[in-house]
Amino acid sequence: MKPHRQRTAIGIDFGGTTVKAGLVDETGAVLDRVQAATADICARPAWLDFVGQCLRRFGTGRRRPAGIGVGVPGFVDFKRGFIYNLTNVPGWTRVPLAGMIKKRFGLNVFVDNDVNAFALGECVYGAGRRFSQAVFATLGTGVGGAVVIDGRLYRGAYSMAGEIGHMSIDLHGRRTPEGRGGLETYVGNTRLVAAAARALRAGRRSLLRSLVNNDMRRLTPEIMARAARRGDPLALDIFDTMADCLATTFASVTYLLQPEVIIVGGGVAQSGRVLFEPLRRHLRERLHPFFAERIRVIPAVLGADAGLVGCAALVFQAARG
Amino acid sequence: MKPHRQRTAIGIDFGGTTVKAGLVDETGAVLDRVQAATADICARPAWLDFVGQCLRRFGTGRRRPAGIGVGVPGFVDFKRGFIYNLTNVPGWTRVPLAGMIKKRFGLNVFVDNDVNAFALGECVYGAGRRFSQAVFATLGTGVGGAVVIDGRLYRGAYSMAGEIGHMSIDLHGRRTPEGRGGLETYVGNTRLVAAAARALRAGRRSLLRSLVNNDMRRLTPEIMARAARRGDPLALDIFDTMADCLATTFASVTYLLQPEVIIVGGGVAQSGRVLFEPLRRHLRERLHPFFAERIRVIPAVLGADAGLVGCAALVFQAARG
Repeated sequence: MKPHRQRTAIGIDFGGTTVKAGLVDETGAVLDRVQAATADICARPAWLDFVGQCLRRFGTGRRRPAGIGVGVPGFVDFKRGFIYNLTNVPGWTRVPLAGMIKKRFGLNVFVDNDVNAFALGECVYGAGRRFSQAVFATLGTGVGGAVVIDGRLYRGAYSMAGEIGHMSIDLHGRRTPEGRGGLETYVGNTRLVAAAARALRAGRRSLLRSLVNNDMRRLTPEIMARAARRGDPLALDIFDTMADCLATTFASVTYLLQPEVIIVGGGVAQSGRVLFEPLRRHLRERLHPFFAERIRVIPAVLGADAGLVGCAALVFQAARG
Repeated sequence: MKPHRQRTAIGIDFGGTTVKAGLVDETGAVLDRVQAATADICARPAWLDFVGQCLRRFGTGRRRPAGIGVGVPGFVDFKRGFIYNLTNVPGWTRVPLAGMIKKRFGLNVFVDNDVNAFALGECVYGAGRRFSQAVFATLGTGVGGAVVIDGRLYRGAYSMAGEIGHMSIDLHGRRTPEGRGGLETYVGNTRLVAAAARALRAGRRSLLRSLVNNDMRRLTPEIMARAARRGDPLALDIFDTMADCLATTFASVTYLLQPEVIIVGGGVAQSGRVLFEPLRRHLRERLHPFFAERIRVIPAVLGADAGLVGCAALVFQAARG
């Protein structure tokens, strides 16, 4: 009830287009925030200067933050705070980020991938608060994932666990560098839009046609969700197929880990019941009642701040032990 | 080096045909053992009498065991030591086994499913000894599984995790009470034998024909492994297909959990390189190099005693905290 007496941490959500930094207290409240375009600060010296600005701004008249947590879009060795590679940000290959920040600013630093940070945020402050065993999925361009075991992120033996987007749903499916028939090759923004465009070009009647003025390039998952909510059969079909693919993976995840809950975030997850109704229905069909009765599937709740507060939670969790 | 000074525990491996009990020390050595036919003692009073006999026999001139661990072939609530149901043993539905044994004999009791006990045995005393993050698969009539996280069995939120045999490898696969296209519907002793019999009946030439004297009923996984080791193309094909199905699930498991190792036990796992060579090859094909380079697949090593010592390990692990 006295947030200024709480310990604080700085969360930095390093996205492909925006870097968001926030001063977060242990209740998950964002006390102050600042952001920059990734393109403007993606050279490493500029990025470190940005951290310096955050520290000065967030530090004024306040107790020193307990540390800095950074979430990045790529492969990370969490233990060493080392970035192997960021998919969409040039110049960030093999960067010992934690060491660099620590050396310059003398603070504890934790670096994790962005889906882990999102999951931890939802887990500690959002939809996962009441659960100790949870699996997270983010639906965006691809499908990201994270695993929470006994209330803590589980990163696997080499920091790369949670890649549910690459779990196969068809052993004879399409080949990719990640294997065959991975969930991500069936689900995701681009697939959703492509499926709609294909059906429309094939002459299928749909509300979508008027919603985008016959311009397929204007199709988005949001517009498709709007059409589905208005009962458009094509949009409903596409959401149903996507939900069944997701349910196949979620069933496998449930058989392997039996979490209490699967929490779904990312843009498409905001479609609401047009996604969650068929998702829960197909998941029930794909599980034995012993498992079906016990698993929940719920949407994430923190929206765009999940990553930011999750980064701060990396610091608080580490401090806790 | 002074095993008689070690703490001991009693392991009871409650199988569908045999109940094996052993006095096990903390190094995993079986100091004494006794067994009975399941049919003879499967009435509950007789079963408890058997436990009493074990205690008298194992107790003579020795320090009191730290407790009893029981592995059973079915669904269990580990926390309560409660058996929901045993698949192949009549009369064992909704049995509070831990409470019953504890009440009568005053010892600590732990009840888990048999695959968990096997996995714990291999993990503490066998092929998993050097690993903290491991996944286990047992290939028998079906496919069982277990998950070890940070050196301990992970049972999920409701004691039922590890069912890798029900993980789907084909979203359009065969429907069963457990979903669609579960690994177990492609892999397992019966499938292996049925695939061979089908090919032989269709006229395919194979060493198998002479190995079973043209009597398909004599086909077993062991005979098929023998034929495969001698280079028989049909037997090699069938092992290759089975290995690819297993690899599909193992790839998904690796993407989700990134264990250090997947340990494979059960009868078919004793086929050796005719299984493991194609299994490792297909797994590599189905994983991104980041994951493929880091995952190992190795056979279990304890053979028939894994369950027994694993049951004892349930007691030692609990005592450890």
